[in-house]
Amino acid sequence: MSTIRTNARVLYEFTAEAGNNELSVKEGETLTVTNKSIGGGWIEAQNFRGEVGLVPEDYIEFITLQAPAAPPPPPQSVGNVAPQDLSFFDAYAPASTPASNGNDPWSTWNSNNNWPSNPEGTQTGKSAADPWNSQMQAHPQAYQGPGAEDDEWDDEWDDTKSNAESEAGEAGAMMRSGAHMGEVGPVWLYPESQLDCVVADPKKGSKMYGLKSYIEYQITPNTTNRPVNHRYKHFDWLYERLLDKFGSAIPIPSLPDKQVTGRFEEEFIKMRMERLQGWMIRMCRHPVISCSDVFQLFLTYKDEKDWKMGKRKAEKDETVGVMIFTTIEPEAPDLDLLEVEQKCEQFSRFTKAMDDGVKEILTVGHEHWKRCTGPLPKEYQRIGKAFQNLSSVFTSSGYQGEATLTDALTEAGKTYEEIARMFAEQPKKDLHFLMENNNEYKGLLGCFPDTIGVHKAAIEKVKEGDKLVAASKITSQEKGAMAKRVSTMSYALQAEMNHFHSNRIYDYNRVMQLYLEEQVKFYETIAAKLRQAHSQFTTM
Amino acid sequence: MSTIRTNARVLYEFTAEAGNNELSVKEGETLTVTNKSIGGGWIEAQNFRGEVGLVPEDYIEFITLQAPAAPPPPPQSVGNVAPQDLSFFDAYAPASTPASNGNDPWSTWNSNNNWPSNPEGTQTGKSAADPWNSQMQAHPQAYQGPGAEDDEWDDEWDDTKSNAESEAGEAGAMMRSGAHMGEVGPVWLYPESQLDCVVADPKKGSKMYGLKSYIEYQITPNTTNRPVNHRYKHFDWLYERLLDKFGSAIPIPSLPDKQVTGRFEEEFIKMRMERLQGWMIRMCRHPVISCSDVFQLFLTYKDEKDWKMGKRKAEKDETVGVMIFTTIEPEAPDLDLLEVEQKCEQFSRFTKAMDDGVKEILTVGHEHWKRCTGPLPKEYQRIGKAFQNLSSVFTSSGYQGEATLTDALTEAGKTYEEIARMFAEQPKKDLHFLMENNNEYKGLLGCFPDTIGVHKAAIEKVKEGDKLVAASKITSQEKGAMAKRVSTMSYALQAEMNHFHSNRIYDYNRVMQLYLEEQVKFYETIAAKLRQAHSQFTTM
Repeated sequence: MSTIRTNARVLYEFTAEAGNNELSVKEGETLTVTNKSIGGGWIEAQNFRGEVGLVPEDYIEFITLQAPAAPPPPPQSVGNVAPQDLSFFDAYAPASTPASNGNDPWSTWNSNNNWPSNPEGTQTGKSAADPWNSQMQAHPQAYQGPGAEDDEWDDEWDDTKSNAESEAGEAGAMMRSGAHMGEVGPVWLYPESQLDCVVADPKKGSKMYGLKSYIEYQITPNTTNRPVNHRYKHFDWLYERLLDKFGSAIPIPSLPDKQVTGRFEEEFIKMRMERLQGWMIRMCRHPVISCSDVFQLFLTYKDEKDWKMGKRKAEKDETVGVMIFTTIEPEAPDLDLLEVEQKCEQFSRFTKAMDDGVKEILTVGHEHWKRCTGPLPKEYQRIGKAFQNLSSVFTSSGYQGEATLTDALTEAGKTYEEIARMFAEQPKKDLHFLMENNNEYKGLLGCFPDTIGVHKAAIEKVKEGDKLVAASKITSQEKGAMAKRVSTMSYALQAEMNHFHSNRIYDYNRVMQLYLEEQVKFYETIAAKLRQAHSQFTTM
Repeated sequence: MSTIRTNARVLYEFTAEAGNNELSVKEGETLTVTNKSIGGGWIEAQNFRGEVGLVPEDYIEFITLQAPAAPPPPPQSVGNVAPQDLSFFDAYAPASTPASNGNDPWSTWNSNNNWPSNPEGTQTGKSAADPWNSQMQAHPQAYQGPGAEDDEWDDEWDDTKSNAESEAGEAGAMMRSGAHMGEVGPVWLYPESQLDCVVADPKKGSKMYGLKSYIEYQITPNTTNRPVNHRYKHFDWLYERLLDKFGSAIPIPSLPDKQVTGRFEEEFIKMRMERLQGWMIRMCRHPVISCSDVFQLFLTYKDEKDWKMGKRKAEKDETVGVMIFTTIEPEAPDLDLLEVEQKCEQFSRFTKAMDDGVKEILTVGHEHWKRCTGPLPKEYQRIGKAFQNLSSVFTSSGYQGEATLTDALTEAGKTYEEIARMFAEQPKKDLHFLMENNNEYKGLLGCFPDTIGVHKAAIEKVKEGDKLVAASKITSQEKGAMAKRVSTMSYALQAEMNHFHSNRIYDYNRVMQLYLEEQVKFYETIAAKLRQAHSQFTTM
């Protein structure tokens, strides 16, 4: 097996022959090549659904790693303003807002405890209390129990952590990102080529002379096409850094849940890998996150030394919490407070409503899953058995010319037993992806209350600004700076919402297509099987 | 509307246009013409499933009433014995066994109370206790409660009943039937043309100046093509006569249940009519019953006077109970007792096993019906609603380019709501007929324990014959006659079983075809609807 993963694009449709370990593929489909050296004109590949099988080499072309499922960025304006005039969110400008300036109103805000929301919690990622729903996916810290592979301690990890606080902030690690004004309003500046990565090849590693074991995943970014290895714990570390750094402006979805022990270890690893892949793709897609030093470190570190140094640096990054907004300076007219409030309210309403909608789908989907794998197959099996039993009874009649009916009745019975199996297997083929997509969105949406809370708190602060000026607690200049920064926050929120919407439309389109396509196949297969069963009965 | 019903055969397939009150028909299908005088090249017709609609006149040919769903008689031998030599069950021979001979061993048997079964019960049709299963369809007498249309009394009915006993037996009303030896063993002699009838056009009648109302059905036999009217009560009278007369030899299935009151009177009447039609077709198909005077009277009485006279005559018929066997004299080698016993045991085992099989299908089908009309549509509706809700949320995003996704998502949601309705409606289109067929067979099979009981009792009697001869209770000649008659009974039972098997194979073939055909259509329609919904999503 090659260690470097490559992708392949399917040139011609290929239908697998049953029992030959082949994989049916469609023209235009992107595959992950899992084994190039099969020989005899075959390669082994994995499709979107995780199915692995042989495909004729001539039917595909190898491609360098690219985003296989990347949505287009939000539409760009071709209107009356030139793009260069619309770069609201320029790169970090240290002269105007130094990151470590103690007199900055931002740092004042950080220490103010009267806020209705808890931006401190947001900054450290410890805010597990969800304002919407206690059932909502909590931050992974909540699940830190006796994990099978996560409860053992990494010496290096501890060392790094304890050393982190004492070191100086890293001024050079600021966000290099920007935004256009698109057709839809402010949008992030998207990089020319989309970052993408493949998470694959989970391998058991061990340490302490085999006493402790862990799973290591191979992550290959399309930029270097060079795999790096990471354990779940490293993903968790990355999550913490991203949450600290970007959480006030960008929803950072939680990692897939930790699980206590794996009764079906293989399946658990596969599922976790699938979800880590989904999480990584979402991070790669984000123009701000994907460009950050810490994310780039995770994907492209050269060796252990490089990784350790990068980790220390990232942990000393002081541009965390609302500080992220100091790295954004929109060259655009300031928004008035009313507009900022309205936008904030709109996003709050929308994300709340979508959260409800997504949870409804998850609830209904969960019930449907249970029915499809429980009572329905049981019932179709009973129907199948009843037909077959009647067929056996008929066979015992001793009457001549019974065979045509009994054979047909037996086949009809077996068909219903097959339909039973099909029903039980179907959710894995379609509902699974619908559920996973909605689960991901539930996680994402669960981050918005915090993000929106930060904004609401800032708005309240500006509203109180006049009083603070009157009480000489801040200067009117400082109050003006606050108003300007709230406007900046609003631009950032709008860019983030537009990013969210664009991805959402892409994701739901894709997953609904997949779902309905599989549903069509399912019902067509049932119809075909019943038609075959029907043809066994004679017309008299 | 014409009062005389005619049938029509479909020459060319015709697909109904929605909303035009048209009826889709298939080549070869038989229709009941319900209105010839529609005009404009159209006629109104009813199909097998009771659906009524317009069909182009040119697409059909009118036919004289024939059995639209008649199975072929059991296969006839083309072997080494000429048919005329195989007429085992000749017409009644009054010289050898006078019907009213008190010294006849048959009448001795009738008064013997030591029998394990209760042939008396069978003769009078009052044996409601089912030896197999108390859930089994009991004789309709058990249901004689305060019926909506049956609890009022018909003076004429009462008069006739009270006069019946006093009149003399009708010697000429003996069974004119016979049997061949077919490939499968003894078979009844089937008439050249199959009797058939259509039960249709239920009409409310009233009497006593409108104080009492009843439903009258129109029954049109294919022999006269002239309709006669009968109320449920008349069917019940016919059932009683057939049970008295033929019950020891031929299973007479119960009539459809009486119902207390009709919350949905129209549906109740339709259902009862459908079941009366099924019952009549089964009686018409039977070569012995269909030729009997009482059955012919029911179908072809000329006027009220004819009907009343026929009724009186039928009620005085003394060839009832086991006496029916006196009308059969097989010109064939007597069967030895062992063979008779073996046949009897075989049929007993088979009918018991089939009864179990049929009940299993009914149980499973009943549950499936509940699921298809209850939880399943509810679930698909919830899925549909969840998609539509998410679509509304998306519409509220304020983001541009949302419409394609939201329109598609709404359509997908509506499609699942439609699938919900389809699931709820489907059982009426397929499961209904499967259930009705099995219900009919459950009723038929429920008659066999009595029929077989008569045979077993007769066998026991013959076994005791030697003792009875030793005790001078019967002569050895009489004992010989008994053995001969048990042989006759066995031939009759075999002919009846072969009739049953032939019909069973036909009926199950037909109903399974119908069921699977509708199931195929159902799943294909779902697939087509989902395919349409799928096409609404854009490929990016």
